[in-house]
Amino acid sequence: MRDALKEIGVFVKHLLSVRDLKKEDVLSYFRKIEKMEEEVRKGRTNLLEDKIIATLFFEPSTRTKLSFQTAAKRLGAQVVNFNADASSLKKGESLMDTIRIIDGYVDAIVIRHEIEGAARFASEIATHPVINAGDGANQHPSQTLIDLYSIKKLRGKISGLNVTLFGDLKHARAMHSLFYGVAMFNRNIALVAPPGLSFDERTVEEVETEFGVKVTVKEKPEIDDCDVLYVCRIQKERFSDPYEAERVKKEFMLTQETLKKAKKDMIILHPLPKIDEIAHEVDSDSRAKYFQQAQLGVPVRMAILADLFGKV
Amino acid sequence: MRDALKEIGVFVKHLLSVRDLKKEDVLSYFRKIEKMEEEVRKGRTNLLEDKIIATLFFEPSTRTKLSFQTAAKRLGAQVVNFNADASSLKKGESLMDTIRIIDGYVDAIVIRHEIEGAARFASEIATHPVINAGDGANQHPSQTLIDLYSIKKLRGKISGLNVTLFGDLKHARAMHSLFYGVAMFNRNIALVAPPGLSFDERTVEEVETEFGVKVTVKEKPEIDDCDVLYVCRIQKERFSDPYEAERVKKEFMLTQETLKKAKKDMIILHPLPKIDEIAHEVDSDSRAKYFQQAQLGVPVRMAILADLFGKV
Amino acid sequence: MRDALKEIGVFVKHLLSVRDLKKEDVLSYFRKIEKMEEEVRKGRTNLLEDKIIATLFFEPSTRTKLSFQTAAKRLGAQVVNFNADASSLKKGESLMDTIRIIDGYVDAIVIRHEIEGAARFASEIATHPVINAGDGANQHPSQTLIDLYSIKKLRGKISGLNVTLFGDLKHARAMHSLFYGVAMFNRNIALVAPPGLSFDERTVEEVETEFGVKVTVKEKPEIDDCDVLYVCRIQKERFSDPYEAERVKKEFMLTQETLKKAKKDMIILHPLPKIDEIAHEVDSDSRAKYFQQAQLGVPVRMAILADLFGKV
Repeated sequence: MRDALKEIGVFVKHLLSVRDLKKEDVLSYFRKIEKMEEEVRKGRTNLLEDKIIATLFFEPSTRTKLSFQTAAKRLGAQVVNFNADASSLKKGESLMDTIRIIDGYVDAIVIRHEIEGAARFASEIATHPVINAGDGANQHPSQTLIDLYSIKKLRGKISGLNVTLFGDLKHARAMHSLFYGVAMFNRNIALVAPPGLSFDERTVEEVETEFGVKVTVKEKPEIDDCDVLYVCRIQKERFSDPYEAERVKKEFMLTQETLKKAKKDMIILHPLPKIDEIAHEVDSDSRAKYFQQAQLGVPVRMAILADLFGKV
Repeated sequence: MRDALKEIGVFVKHLLSVRDLKKEDVLSYFRKIEKMEEEVRKGRTNLLEDKIIATLFFEPSTRTKLSFQTAAKRLGAQVVNFNADASSLKKGESLMDTIRIIDGYVDAIVIRHEIEGAARFASEIATHPVINAGDGANQHPSQTLIDLYSIKKLRGKISGLNVTLFGDLKHARAMHSLFYGVAMFNRNIALVAPPGLSFDERTVEEVETEFGVKVTVKEKPEIDDCDVLYVCRIQKERFSDPYEAERVKKEFMLTQETLKKAKKDMIILHPLPKIDEIAHEVDSDSRAKYFQQAQLGVPVRMAILADLFGKV
Repeated sequence: MRDALKEIGVFVKHLLSVRDLKKEDVLSYFRKIEKMEEEVRKGRTNLLEDKIIATLFFEPSTRTKLSFQTAAKRLGAQVVNFNADASSLKKGESLMDTIRIIDGYVDAIVIRHEIEGAARFASEIATHPVINAGDGANQHPSQTLIDLYSIKKLRGKISGLNVTLFGDLKHARAMHSLFYGVAMFNRNIALVAPPGLSFDERTVEEVETEFGVKVTVKEKPEIDDCDVLYVCRIQKERFSDPYEAERVKKEFMLTQETLKKAKKDMIILHPLPKIDEIAHEVDSDSRAKYFQQAQLGVPVRMAILADLFGKV
């Protein structure tokens, strides 16, 4: 079916990876997101009123799912949720079969899967648009678009900024996608991570070469000249020594003390949920923008969905 | 954000407790519910067609959730369900963060939580309306509005009635809210509960003083002069002696035998689900009104939702 | 309530069993399904825009539930899902009470239950249409309508065909319903099943007598003269000897080798999910039609829902 569509010149659009996007694509998304912000202010549109969208989550991700569902509904679309836990997959059905069947029911599929490449695989089978809502530790492109748009909107510009990625970069899904995204627009990127928890050298070199950026790697929580501080969690489980884990977590915890040295117009972002990597007191600091960032998830995902159908 | 709204004179309406309502408020709800009953007869309205409502249940309550979702949909609103089990809460996210994020997505939050005061806490954080769908053993105001409207509609009037609250009053969530609600309208309230399972003395005295009602406390299932019999469950787990539990459950089970002595125009209400506290045979007695009462849950909750947005 | 409706001549339509349908009814459904296929091509209709439909699944069946929900939404209806796992049923509520309450909320109930006759029981209580989405090993009429319509559409005609039911017929829910359905239209039916896993003799005799068909029973996978091959799974658990189970599963697995002897215009159907009863390579054989069959689930279920309300 898919090949037949291709033969007659019908191409289906997907959103699978930030790596598939160029700078112009991101800027084009920004314009579409601005339109969607306007629609959110009004309540709801009817742009996708004849569409049914499936959310197909093979690992739990309440927040991402909820924000995609809200986005779809604010576009007038209907949502069906495929509960992967309770499903035939447990009986041994192949992912290929599952995708084929759901693709036969609905108009677009939002998929999250623990295996890298699962979304791209799904897009090879489906005759309808597929959105990658996270595959393993690999890509999470809608999150990256939220992050980039949050920088632009909440810091006022997207380029010429010192961006610091902060925390356990190695294991955080959102951070790999974001690293590429930020490198499209900025020359100075700092990676601040405990020893052994930064990106691997190959990734750093690849980004430096491809985008011509200067990447600084630090093992201490220094954020003095930072314009955008993007924080992610440090998980105890990554350390063999629990005392060392506790020490590092404390050292990297963001407090009002840490923020004293930071710029006044810096912004703090976080993909959320956060646990204890940011002290409670920081929430009321005017630089803390992560709740606004989360809220932008809805218009960003509206833009992504509407764009797949050429409706924005 | 919320404080900023307050400063410019924007107040968000919530429904948190029956204690926040005056008699006039309840009567005003009655008029709104009547309008909503009319809409249900027609099928569906578009009063909230641009709204998205989140149901956020931290403990299971299928019936309450389903009836809120149905109410929202009959108003033309869309619903997103936050599955608290599968969520980040398990990872340690604070309730405050969860509320902030969901509040950033949707237009109203229906919350159920096992901790007393959780709904009020949520309302302090949220910039959108919050409805308390039950917090601990404390308040369940939408249930009380259903109960009061059921009395008015199914018994024909709301005042001047002998109302009996019957069963394990101490542990039943709905009963505390209802006690206050009934006291607004009626002078004679009987509490019929096994020894040790009635309301505590302070609650009784408070209601007597505040509303000027006469409360009669009984330990035997006497319902002769009763106009409204409101039954709730007696749970075995509340007794240390299983034989005593069995004896008391049997004694308080509502049967056709018990009903022989009751008034012909009495009505029997129950928040449902019921197990064995009402004998099967009673279902077909014309005084048994609990299924009609359950059905009224939809128009009552429609009125609550529409009212929060000033749409009814 | 239901009896009162009957007395004043209001009859509620249900879909409970294929046994309730005559040949004309099936043909009438076919015409309605064709209309619904047209609507699916256009996206979505508003035929049921004022209806709320409950899906009430007491055993998991992701695919059936998802396709009913999609069908309802493509008709403009709203869906509420009653999560039977998390519900009061665990606390001991009777099925009768559950049905009564949900019937008080919504406009139609789609029910799946592990007990035979549960759907008919529900229809006796409800004042709104009830659809049987599978009760025990008994009936699954919407699946049978999908199967029959798939034969007509994907094989080009519904009558005068050699139909083979293939696999563990004894334990497959879909197969009993289908046997009756196929017998309405065709004279030659072959049952191909491992020893002990065919239909019981009484069922075979009943169908032969009632419909005047010739039923051939085979214990070897012969499909030479077959026009429609309907495959279902063979489960290991049905055998006491695991070696025997493995041998039989292998023997009955559908491969390109098996298909060499089959007709060129034969079609292969399967209710899905499939595991290993059909070799992967068969998926790309042009005779494999099970994914198209699954896709037809949506328009077929749209026709069923719309028909219950007299809207198609």
